[in-house]
Amino acid sequence: MSDLSRKIDEIKKLPEKEQIYSLNELIAQEGVDAPEAIKELKQLLAPYGYGNIGLAQINPILGDIKYNAQKVVKYISYAEKIGLDVIIFPELTLVGYPIEDIIDRHPIIVEENIKWLNEIAKITKQTRAIVGFIEKVKSQTGRRYYNSVAILAEGKIESIVRKTLLPTYSEFYDSRYFEPSPVIGNQPPETLCNLDKVYDSPKLSTINKLKYGITICEDCWNNSDFFVPNLYKVDPVKELAKEFPDILVNCSASPTRTKKEQLKHNMLSYISRQHKTIFIYVNQVGAIDNISFDGSSRVYNPRGELIARAKSFEEQLLIVNPIKGLGKIYPLASGLEKTLREPKIFTLDYEPDLERTYKTIIQGIRDYFKKTGFRRAVLGLSGGLDSSVCAVLLADALLPQNVFGVSMPSKLTSDESKNDAKELANNLGINFTQAPIKNMYDVINTSLQELFDQVEQKWDNRYKKSFTPDNIQARSRAMLLWGISNEFGSCLPIATSDKSELYMGYATINGDMSGGFAPIADVTKTKLFALARWMNKNRDIKNAIPESVIAKRPGAELAINPKTGKPLLAEEALMPYEFLDEVIWRIENKHESYNEMLNSQFLYEKEKSIDLTQKIEWLDKFYRRMSTSLYKWSILPPSVLVDARSINKNDYRQPITSSHIDYKGLVEEEIKNIIADWL
Amino acid sequence: MSDLSRKIDEIKKLPEKEQIYSLNELIAQEGVDAPEAIKELKQLLAPYGYGNIGLAQINPILGDIKYNAQKVVKYISYAEKIGLDVIIFPELTLVGYPIEDIIDRHPIIVEENIKWLNEIAKITKQTRAIVGFIEKVKSQTGRRYYNSVAILAEGKIESIVRKTLLPTYSEFYDSRYFEPSPVIGNQPPETLCNLDKVYDSPKLSTINKLKYGITICEDCWNNSDFFVPNLYKVDPVKELAKEFPDILVNCSASPTRTKKEQLKHNMLSYISRQHKTIFIYVNQVGAIDNISFDGSSRVYNPRGELIARAKSFEEQLLIVNPIKGLGKIYPLASGLEKTLREPKIFTLDYEPDLERTYKTIIQGIRDYFKKTGFRRAVLGLSGGLDSSVCAVLLADALLPQNVFGVSMPSKLTSDESKNDAKELANNLGINFTQAPIKNMYDVINTSLQELFDQVEQKWDNRYKKSFTPDNIQARSRAMLLWGISNEFGSCLPIATSDKSELYMGYATINGDMSGGFAPIADVTKTKLFALARWMNKNRDIKNAIPESVIAKRPGAELAINPKTGKPLLAEEALMPYEFLDEVIWRIENKHESYNEMLNSQFLYEKEKSIDLTQKIEWLDKFYRRMSTSLYKWSILPPSVLVDARSINKNDYRQPITSSHIDYKGLVEEEIKNIIADWL
Repeated sequence: MSDLSRKIDEIKKLPEKEQIYSLNELIAQEGVDAPEAIKELKQLLAPYGYGNIGLAQINPILGDIKYNAQKVVKYISYAEKIGLDVIIFPELTLVGYPIEDIIDRHPIIVEENIKWLNEIAKITKQTRAIVGFIEKVKSQTGRRYYNSVAILAEGKIESIVRKTLLPTYSEFYDSRYFEPSPVIGNQPPETLCNLDKVYDSPKLSTINKLKYGITICEDCWNNSDFFVPNLYKVDPVKELAKEFPDILVNCSASPTRTKKEQLKHNMLSYISRQHKTIFIYVNQVGAIDNISFDGSSRVYNPRGELIARAKSFEEQLLIVNPIKGLGKIYPLASGLEKTLREPKIFTLDYEPDLERTYKTIIQGIRDYFKKTGFRRAVLGLSGGLDSSVCAVLLADALLPQNVFGVSMPSKLTSDESKNDAKELANNLGINFTQAPIKNMYDVINTSLQELFDQVEQKWDNRYKKSFTPDNIQARSRAMLLWGISNEFGSCLPIATSDKSELYMGYATINGDMSGGFAPIADVTKTKLFALARWMNKNRDIKNAIPESVIAKRPGAELAINPKTGKPLLAEEALMPYEFLDEVIWRIENKHESYNEMLNSQFLYEKEKSIDLTQKIEWLDKFYRRMSTSLYKWSILPPSVLVDARSINKNDYRQPITSSHIDYKGLVEEEIKNIIADWL
Repeated sequence: MSDLSRKIDEIKKLPEKEQIYSLNELIAQEGVDAPEAIKELKQLLAPYGYGNIGLAQINPILGDIKYNAQKVVKYISYAEKIGLDVIIFPELTLVGYPIEDIIDRHPIIVEENIKWLNEIAKITKQTRAIVGFIEKVKSQTGRRYYNSVAILAEGKIESIVRKTLLPTYSEFYDSRYFEPSPVIGNQPPETLCNLDKVYDSPKLSTINKLKYGITICEDCWNNSDFFVPNLYKVDPVKELAKEFPDILVNCSASPTRTKKEQLKHNMLSYISRQHKTIFIYVNQVGAIDNISFDGSSRVYNPRGELIARAKSFEEQLLIVNPIKGLGKIYPLASGLEKTLREPKIFTLDYEPDLERTYKTIIQGIRDYFKKTGFRRAVLGLSGGLDSSVCAVLLADALLPQNVFGVSMPSKLTSDESKNDAKELANNLGINFTQAPIKNMYDVINTSLQELFDQVEQKWDNRYKKSFTPDNIQARSRAMLLWGISNEFGSCLPIATSDKSELYMGYATINGDMSGGFAPIADVTKTKLFALARWMNKNRDIKNAIPESVIAKRPGAELAINPKTGKPLLAEEALMPYEFLDEVIWRIENKHESYNEMLNSQFLYEKEKSIDLTQKIEWLDKFYRRMSTSLYKWSILPPSVLVDARSINKNDYRQPITSSHIDYKGLVEEEIKNIIADWL
């Protein structure tokens, strides 16, 4: 008796529903070479008669149509073998989302994805496959492409649905390259790349006794009762609901960000309840550059209850039968449910979001490396919080043997920091070495001082106290890390800057902010502390980050504070991180102005009394530093979007030359007087 | 008799029309302190009776409302004094274009610009002022803002027009933050931030006997007879033309790019002819980050003839009376007219575009520095073409005394290169010094080799031949330049990478591609050669760039070619620049695919016969290198858009993880066989 047969026999002892899910997972592990298990699964599903559906959340490589198509073919073939009615893929299945401007500059990609769609259609039989693709627009007016899905069956394309609502905000740029659909619901197959008018054909797909209303991603995000205000005039889901579908389907590619899961759950539950319809949501999984998609595809019943949910951050085909109650709810990151109805206030209790944050970044690192062809990372280990957290994340994403930590002490580096770096590397099992930068620093400093003396003969305004020595250290370290990346194959250096410090421009160009990837660029410092503690508690190997790293107050050890004679602490140069992070939160989440913040009580103020002068000083410093950090934001390496809002240039666009903005504003009387002065 | 009076007397000897333009220019030089000249000008304009119009092309600082408002107030006051009927400002006058996501994150900017608008309205008298601003949307559906203009007169807002067509492609992102207007033409003043329905009020503004139809920028770029295909379903200009305006006005912010002037001229001429109406186009001038606006505001008569055009790349109030034939056509960059109807083919004759290219970059550098508060630049002078061209551009944009050229020879640097660098600096009158990098190189190399030996104990895949030595040189130089920027106030280091080399990733991260600004990142190598020659011929000081710099074949002098024993030439590492630049051109302008290029005859092939194997090798290398250069594009410093299309991340968006795209594609039969293999 084979090992596989034994496993199948074990599974057959479980309750019937558990058999289905265990067999499905077993087959996923074994690949298609498990005909025995497939046969068992088919027999278990057969009695349901109709309504068996597969939610295929795949992790595509952007633009790699062959790679993505192989997944599609594999899942369609499997779905056919186990007798599903329909298998549903995420938005833009064949090319991945977001495809962006590539399709304008390289239209061959669109040609290719249509060829692949047609060939994939030919292998379909009884099981319908709902597959996303880019379609050409026939009309001479408008953009050149639709974001479409095709329903494939019996060797042909059966019908086509196009996306109506095109998100164009934050990380979304759909309006740059897609035309909105002129019609909601299905259109006949002869309209492929040829939609010259709206045909009066059924809007819904009828598949084995059930009627399906299909939409694409943003199409389900405009319920005007749920969202006030809302963004678009049409609600495609409401339009389809008028046709009395049994099941509403949404093919999606929706990134995970703070608070997004809660919003999504409440919204989808509301929609299914409002229309008294089953709602099936199939989401892309995996990361594309800065965007991490969490999968977690799901099904709601007509009462708005969640009846099935796929895994998070993992490719999976989830089998459901929402008509007959077949479903399984795989767990979300713990803590998320807790915050479903939490009011939007600033808090230092990050606990409910830490597992999601961790998994979002892990997937972000892993997929960026895999999809760009890298497998190893090198980073500087300072013994501080930022580099320590990055090291843990890299070890978990890439495996410890693929991570090299380099301690690069200068004369300002304390023994404690050196020891912390070494201990961390030991705990993680990553590679470690030390490379002092003293010699480099001395020679570079000498060369620079000679050069400065030359320059000073021609130029005024030499700073009495400059950041040159600090920056030589940071840049020498980057020089070493990039050197390793040049010398050893498949290796990227890591930028360890965090979000709080990037807001303040407290990061060195060509130094610590340079790298092939920036894992924590969207994590504020106070959240990093919480994440460090969470990882110490929740990883298999406990307390990988030495307690002393978390306990000490952050400082770059690049300069001495003349007041204390000790290395300058970051908070001395900036302001308390609890205060700084709340300013960031209020701007990003509440769009508060300078004066609104001045007149609000901060969490920090509840605990420590600060006088108005101090608060004004910090706020002034915040806006001044933020205004001159825009250039640094513009050259930030790829990172992972984690927070609800960010400074990532793909998510937030602000011209660098806007540094003169007066964020305080003036009142009418002041403006009037200024104008009078000019006249 | 004062100097000013003497000048006025001189002017009064000119023909009447010349008097108007000379006085206007004199007043611009003198500011408002020229009541004598203003009085003369008013007397000259009075007999025209009605139809005197001012086109006020201003150079705003983004978001600096006070700065921009001062210009508006100054020009309105002047227009009133000389008795103009109306003065017209560019799109988004008060904040500058493009304002981007700032208004979502910092809504106070919108509040402020409305306060300023209201206060400015109060100072208006007889002269109407058409002023662009950001307006709040009342509706609960849609985006939160309109892109609007207000017509101000007699102390009040007289009416409001909102932008209908929102460009969202290339450097334009309007759909991210603006709602399209629900109505074309004027709406009454009580709709300010309060447009709850469309009012049945006159669509046109009647100002001193004439009817004006007003649109904003993209609103005039959708004539379906001129553009086939076209982008939007509505043509706001056509709608307004139905109301029989005397004058169509367009408040614009339209960047200059290769071939844009020709397109714009032909289109505006076509529109005015088609609708048999005067067309007044007022364009923003100056650069905002990567985007350079050329001004060149203009007027066409109802026969489509250009009757007035303001200066290019310069702030100006141009006075016209299109009814009575008053106008002056200031010259464009020479050469542009020539190419009005040139077919779209690749050519190495860049001549017609070189003056525009030069001025676009000069303005781009000057405004970036000014608007971010910098005034000095430091760059490495290698004696090569790229750094030499950059030095000239910087000297002209910032003045020679504000530019520091540093020659940083390594052991590979030839005496010729060192001499060329020095001679160039002398010719330009910029500051110059030498800083050999030998000591730095040696110490860094030693530190790196020690570190590599450590790393090699744990990691395989150390390259036998790596780029480490090349990169140490490039990064040492950047270390010196950034050091100067840290040590001396108001100074930015310059990235000298060109477009051809950026396409090929032939640029060092944290090395030559790092800097505060990248002046020639959108200029291909063959065009740089032409630009160098053009500057040598057309600048006041001739032949600033030594002939030997232009004559020699480019090479970075970072490595030795083992085949020749001499420093490796760029074309040996890449491919001939003539071929490379044509590939870039065909992709950007014609969206050609690999196979289309393989089957086309290149210009290069007309002159030199190359066999198919060679062509395939070059094309393969091109796509391979381009695919792995996307990361470098993403961290490119701010540059200036010059070409019709670019790789600037604000103009072209492609995810980095798309490096697996198969740009060759497959035919149906191949796809079919691949799928069959999977099953």
